[in-house]
Amino acid sequence: MDEFMSAAIFQAKQGRQEGGIPIGSVLVKDGKIVGQGHNKRVQDGNPVTHAEIDCLRNASRIGNYRGTIFYSTLMPCYLCAGAVVQFGIKKVIAGESKTFPGPREFMVSHGVEVIDLNLDECEQMMSEFITTNPELWDEDIGR
Amino acid sequence: MDEFMSAAIFQAKQGRQEGGIPIGSVLVKDGKIVGQGHNKRVQDGNPVTHAEIDCLRNASRIGNYRGTIFYSTLMPCYLCAGAVVQFGIKKVIAGESKTFPGPREFMVSHGVEVIDLNLDECEQMMSEFITTNPELWDEDIGR
Repeated sequence: MDEFMSAAIFQAKQGRQEGGIPIGSVLVKDGKIVGQGHNKRVQDGNPVTHAEIDCLRNASRIGNYRGTIFYSTLMPCYLCAGAVVQFGIKKVIAGESKTFPGPREFMVSHGVEVIDLNLDECEQMMSEFITTNPELWDEDIGR
Repeated sequence: MDEFMSAAIFQAKQGRQEGGIPIGSVLVKDGKIVGQGHNKRVQDGNPVTHAEIDCLRNASRIGNYRGTIFYSTLMPCYLCAGAVVQFGIKKVIAGESKTFPGPREFMVSHGVEVIDLNLDECEQMMSEFITTNPELWDEDIGR
């Protein structure tokens, strides 16, 4: 696993320690991390602070997203995939998509390269969380 | 114009007074306003604080979005349309879509009813802003 997905997993674990949903994201531009974040729905009481949204906020206004790659421990949902498409992020690397398939085709149809690393570590973080907190997870994805 | 779009326009004007992009949103649930917000990209230095995202944050965790209607002075972009689809918001009422058409068909294809009120007031707010601040607007929509 490369350093960027490791950083995303670190973010996810930090979120879990805070009592939140263990999903982490890292935005890389021209080979360097320009933003990191994790899901803070629980911590901030904010339904839109998904990991990718927190990451984009922390990257702040970088002007444009050419040359960026979005790493996320979980396949992005429509909210975050919408951000990817709108901002013109052309590559997404997901840790897994078993616990949540996400709108992969939606991103691909907009010219985004999507790679699923299918990592056991990412899947186990989510499986453990969903089993323990099913209602929080349902709320997170708008069920 | 009904009271909800008036409230969204009020939000947009507040954003403009703060030096921001004049887009406002209101979330209505069962006939009552449960959240209001406006674009704060400039004010907060946060590229993801579009009006609808600010509105969802301010509504905070309402649990689910059944019976909600999203009012926005401008047709939502993919980021905000992604939130609409992910959270299961079933009706979007936009003030206008001339200055930015937005992914209306994307929402409709996911079962969202989308109404465009085509209001001169909303269009003029955006036209004036885009003419005066073209670079800020391009940045907002990821150009």
